[in-house]
Amino acid sequence: MTKPKQGDELVFLPLGGADEIGMNLNAYGYGPVEDRRWIIVDIGVSFGGQDKPGIEIILPDPSFLEEERDNILAIVLTHAHEDHIGAIGWLWPRIKAPVYATPFTAALVREKLRDHALLDRVPLHEVSLNAFLQLGPFGVEYVTLTHSIPEPNGLAIRTPLGLVFHTGDWKLDEAPQIGDRTDIARIQGLADEGVLAMVCDSTNVFVEGRAGSEADVRDTLKAAIQSVRGKVAVTAFASNVARLQTTINVARECGRSVCLVGRSMKKVTSAAQSVGLLQHIPPFITEEQAAGMPPESVLYLCTGSQGEPRAALARIASGGHRHVSLGEGDAVLFSSRMIPGNEVAITALQNTLIRRGVRVITDHDAHIHVSGHPCREELKDMYAWVRPRIAVPVHGERRHIIEHAAFARSLQVPMVVAPHNGAMIRLAPGTPDIIDETPAGRLYVDGGVIVEADNEALKERKRIAEEGFVSVSLAVAVKKNAILAGPDVRTRGLSIADEEAFDLALDDLADAAEAAFQRLPHAERVDDELTEAAIVRAVRKAAERAFKKRPLVEVSVLRV
Amino acid sequence: MTKPKQGDELVFLPLGGADEIGMNLNAYGYGPVEDRRWIIVDIGVSFGGQDKPGIEIILPDPSFLEEERDNILAIVLTHAHEDHIGAIGWLWPRIKAPVYATPFTAALVREKLRDHALLDRVPLHEVSLNAFLQLGPFGVEYVTLTHSIPEPNGLAIRTPLGLVFHTGDWKLDEAPQIGDRTDIARIQGLADEGVLAMVCDSTNVFVEGRAGSEADVRDTLKAAIQSVRGKVAVTAFASNVARLQTTINVARECGRSVCLVGRSMKKVTSAAQSVGLLQHIPPFITEEQAAGMPPESVLYLCTGSQGEPRAALARIASGGHRHVSLGEGDAVLFSSRMIPGNEVAITALQNTLIRRGVRVITDHDAHIHVSGHPCREELKDMYAWVRPRIAVPVHGERRHIIEHAAFARSLQVPMVVAPHNGAMIRLAPGTPDIIDETPAGRLYVDGGVIVEADNEALKERKRIAEEGFVSVSLAVAVKKNAILAGPDVRTRGLSIADEEAFDLALDDLADAAEAAFQRLPHAERVDDELTEAAIVRAVRKAAERAFKKRPLVEVSVLRV
Repeated sequence: MTKPKQGDELVFLPLGGADEIGMNLNAYGYGPVEDRRWIIVDIGVSFGGQDKPGIEIILPDPSFLEEERDNILAIVLTHAHEDHIGAIGWLWPRIKAPVYATPFTAALVREKLRDHALLDRVPLHEVSLNAFLQLGPFGVEYVTLTHSIPEPNGLAIRTPLGLVFHTGDWKLDEAPQIGDRTDIARIQGLADEGVLAMVCDSTNVFVEGRAGSEADVRDTLKAAIQSVRGKVAVTAFASNVARLQTTINVARECGRSVCLVGRSMKKVTSAAQSVGLLQHIPPFITEEQAAGMPPESVLYLCTGSQGEPRAALARIASGGHRHVSLGEGDAVLFSSRMIPGNEVAITALQNTLIRRGVRVITDHDAHIHVSGHPCREELKDMYAWVRPRIAVPVHGERRHIIEHAAFARSLQVPMVVAPHNGAMIRLAPGTPDIIDETPAGRLYVDGGVIVEADNEALKERKRIAEEGFVSVSLAVAVKKNAILAGPDVRTRGLSIADEEAFDLALDDLADAAEAAFQRLPHAERVDDELTEAAIVRAVRKAAERAFKKRPLVEVSVLRV
Repeated sequence: MTKPKQGDELVFLPLGGADEIGMNLNAYGYGPVEDRRWIIVDIGVSFGGQDKPGIEIILPDPSFLEEERDNILAIVLTHAHEDHIGAIGWLWPRIKAPVYATPFTAALVREKLRDHALLDRVPLHEVSLNAFLQLGPFGVEYVTLTHSIPEPNGLAIRTPLGLVFHTGDWKLDEAPQIGDRTDIARIQGLADEGVLAMVCDSTNVFVEGRAGSEADVRDTLKAAIQSVRGKVAVTAFASNVARLQTTINVARECGRSVCLVGRSMKKVTSAAQSVGLLQHIPPFITEEQAAGMPPESVLYLCTGSQGEPRAALARIASGGHRHVSLGEGDAVLFSSRMIPGNEVAITALQNTLIRRGVRVITDHDAHIHVSGHPCREELKDMYAWVRPRIAVPVHGERRHIIEHAAFARSLQVPMVVAPHNGAMIRLAPGTPDIIDETPAGRLYVDGGVIVEADNEALKERKRIAEEGFVSVSLAVAVKKNAILAGPDVRTRGLSIADEEAFDLALDDLADAAEAAFQRLPHAERVDDELTEAAIVRAVRKAAERAFKKRPLVEVSVLRV
């Protein structure tokens, strides 16, 4: 390892994931402030909720990295979850650095690049597990961990100023079902070298104990399936290939054939098989085949555990699935957790299933799910193995990060930095500190376009969603400056007691518009903007009276 | 008690609360089918969530009761929670029956009637605790229970065909802090009489053990407050007067003066004081006084524990409260549970507080909240005391009701009926059964108007919230049938890469509108509806291309 030069600094900059669980985007910089090289670790998305109507995907703001584009050596991916790779297709064109990923991750990245027509443009380097990459001043070593997806890796990042262990997402699993166990020996080896800083997963810092092993799920899943006379549907995250493997094994033991339902189930299983996973299993049956078989011989593995309205399970529950129907005697096993924000959708889905007579079994009833993130006892183990000089909690909301920071202090980590998105943290030399704030925030994908989080369009939509909309158009004679036709008033999203009252209200609004026009001094009437603004004000007031709402009002004056 | 006549039936009809937790509306009917008398028990609301933008209040559909209006003898209220009394102002004019309530409940009902200008019209009878009312064939006796609000009552409803025990909301609390303990002797007395059916709270049927006593909260709340150097804010449901009393006591012991923040805190404490509760306490201080006092002498009791954006705590967290500010050294105690659906809003609020340096203490960190509903051990006790022949679970989503039904069976209740809203259940004579389905569902309060749940206006608003809006207006010469002005295209809620592209898109939409008009055969052009429909189709198609969204399109053709 080369010696650090005068002025060299090692910095860590989270641009996503340090103010939320999701949307991970981390950068490590090395060199003097005027000549720094960067690597990016992970580039993920979050998903919009009902407070962001029309927004499905949320991206971290990459503007700092865009500016530093020429100095970015690589995008290194730890694992294939959406909150770690999902932004690659959206943001790569702004960064344009080579991408490194292990085979399973690379297979799913390729799908994304294909969707964005970037497959030919992005240099995607597939690396083996335990690979070592020298990227400028950064020596990056993949360290095998366990998590809820194949090929989860921590990264040991060596620099002339010290070694950082970036955990990515992890848990401790003695029997992960797929992939190797956590490479504890390698982690302890890093500790012997001396670890400057550990940048670590905070997701479950509020949870006592341990997450538990994938193996624990097996027996309970089997017992639950054996208790069902009719059809069984198991819903789980498609990316949890170990869970799929377990379910497939248990299905075989219970004499049930497995049918995959839902697009991402098929996508992930095919990616898994392309890298040698899910081998030596009975062939999947099609939905049509399953429909023709005795109920007790079928197990559906399906998407939709979060209550997503368009996913397979929601369609099955509402009776709207073409080939799959469930009813009395059948059961749905939720082998998954509730992602915060989805509670209402998930329980509504469960109620719909129960109304059909379907039995619903969740991880509340039986131990059929384990988390993929470290609980407090696991964090304790990891800190004991790694013995970092600095703890940097990430992958958490503010409350997780602060709690993790306090927990690390209680474990005697000498120094702790609680980062937030955009905080540039100098890890070395000297005492770690936040030395700069870079632009950080969120971008939204809205109808295929990337927009600012505080964009006007979304605000307008939310306003209309609450308050409704009124449009007014009128034709005005240019010379005589008099109304020739209209005002024509239309409303959207406004209710009133009955139709007659509604018609009267529309008349009121039209009268208000006309009166506002007539009241205008001639000098203002010839100005479209002034005219429209005056009519907007008058119509809004009349609408508030009539509808007890504050609708958006749009006025269009046509000069004839 | 008179003897039943030939043809008499006793029926139970839940119109709300049997498919959700909230919105309780229950009816009991007695008599032959062609001449039945009814009493209503409770008349509550639910609240809209983000899936229902602009809807704050949800009401049970009272159309069955409207038809039976002349046969309704009374509206009897068990306690003052919104999901039991909140609809009185909205629905009373459709039912017009006398209302019965104990003093604290009556005080809050009066407030509601005042808001609806109904105070002079509604016969509101204030009854004492343990009162007995003879309402036609129904003998209604109030039975004191414990819950999370003053004056929670069960109702023993005697009829010639048997006695129903309607629990309302309850828990078992040995030391409720306010009000008497559960009147177990009276309940056992009912059992000695013989209880035909128990209609019982299902809220916590998935929770093992017991809810715990209000008294348990006291010591942990005190310890938590003592651990804070700066200001303390405790947020709790205002209606939980026992919690307010406990907090006020603890504040005094800790040398802190209590300041109420938020409208409903003030409303409930004044209702409580009007019926003799919250006496002999130090005077509350004003927000202005609190602002001038040393931090360690202040305790704020404030609304907003559910993350409601306009409540006191949200305004404090965002720094937007006029008199109350919190920061480093201060703490907020969430002495409340998360109501399902509010998880994201609550944790976002907590993160905002933590970003200010405020310590956040929840019932996860310390035992500072207990539930007001019976867990499984409490249900077991109640069934053992009451020994009903029939169990009728209510106050639950479908999953709670089904689970409660199974639980009652496991407790050897001879007969169990799992109701849903609108299911008319014959309790006697004979085997209990669902004998009819009445209209049941939800009504929404939208801008002060009561509308159907599937109303077009809300669908339009939700569609626009996701997809945006385009309005097009054009002036057409009546005789020449040619466009004189426009098409003028306006959009709301639509985004595109940059301004230039946006202007081009608007031009495209205008071109599409014009071309659609020109393409129309003359016979159709003279018809406004056909013309507008053709332009709508063309503009929608162009908008989908330009914005990758499917906006609502409104076209206004002005004939000049």
